[in-house]
Amino acid sequence: MTRGLLIVYTGAGKGKTCAAFGQALRAAGQGLQVCIIQFVKNRPSGEINALRQLADRVEIHQVGSGFSWQDQDLVRFRESALKGWDLAREKITAGTYDLVVLDELTYLFHFSVLGPEEVLATLRARPATMHLVVTGRDAGAELLAAADLVTEMREVKHPFNQGISAQKGIEW
Amino acid sequence: MTRGLLIVYTGAGKGKTCAAFGQALRAAGQGLQVCIIQFVKNRPSGEINALRQLADRVEIHQVGSGFSWQDQDLVRFRESALKGWDLAREKITAGTYDLVVLDELTYLFHFSVLGPEEVLATLRARPATMHLVVTGRDAGAELLAAADLVTEMREVKHPFNQGISAQKGIEW
Repeated sequence: MTRGLLIVYTGAGKGKTCAAFGQALRAAGQGLQVCIIQFVKNRPSGEINALRQLADRVEIHQVGSGFSWQDQDLVRFRESALKGWDLAREKITAGTYDLVVLDELTYLFHFSVLGPEEVLATLRARPATMHLVVTGRDAGAELLAAADLVTEMREVKHPFNQGISAQKGIEW
Repeated sequence: MTRGLLIVYTGAGKGKTCAAFGQALRAAGQGLQVCIIQFVKNRPSGEINALRQLADRVEIHQVGSGFSWQDQDLVRFRESALKGWDLAREKITAGTYDLVVLDELTYLFHFSVLGPEEVLATLRARPATMHLVVTGRDAGAELLAAADLVTEMREVKHPFNQGISAQKGIEW
């Protein structure tokens, strides 16, 4: 038996977005059509630069705004996230993708942009063979219950705690 | 402060190799030189097909043999893994890479190909700015102690347990 999976990478550990982009890379390399929607990150990153070279297979949308290292503007975030969710819904129902990545979707729950039931209704109504990858901390009980595959990335050690800064190519 | 990190993705959950390849993608997209050595997987996969398109930045070696879904030939595995480790040592000391990925390196400990002390001596002696990503279940206390960043991927749910088969682009 095979069918479209709902895959969730959650937890406080580093590696959620890396695992999601690694999954997108694997899918694209097998000829699957991929759409990636980033709900928070909105700067050019190594993974995006690299995936642009696979542009015929992988489509990328950065819909987030209002978040930066220094500053959080929740009004702006909620506005852009709602527009981003409209785009995500359109892509999920379009039927032209084999894999859709919803990077840091769980922030929409944390900041009360949308409730999990509303989001899950769309995820459940996707085409039967379409895979979804959702990332973000604290996915919540409803999303975990609906998922086919859940990996919790438990932070055991992080270089920030040893005074080592974020590094290009590793953190972004 | 910045310096080369030793990053370990371990645990029973899916996503270790995806996270490692996602990390390689990010690094390559930022202009870093990457070398990936796979100690167990030795078949073409989606992630390799896709990364071949970034061939000027990412070098890939599949050194494993003896393992397949049906069969384990440990004598053959030990022989090829030892040769693979020689290659890995050469790449780590060469000084021409910014990131070296050692995919499923921990199998070398599990199957007594090499002891952790011997491997760690090489990892510790790498160039100061070189990052390493190690993946595999049960990394072991010595490797965890030496690492800068450790994420344990805890399996919460897996589709195999619901009778769903491995799917192209998702599992390989």
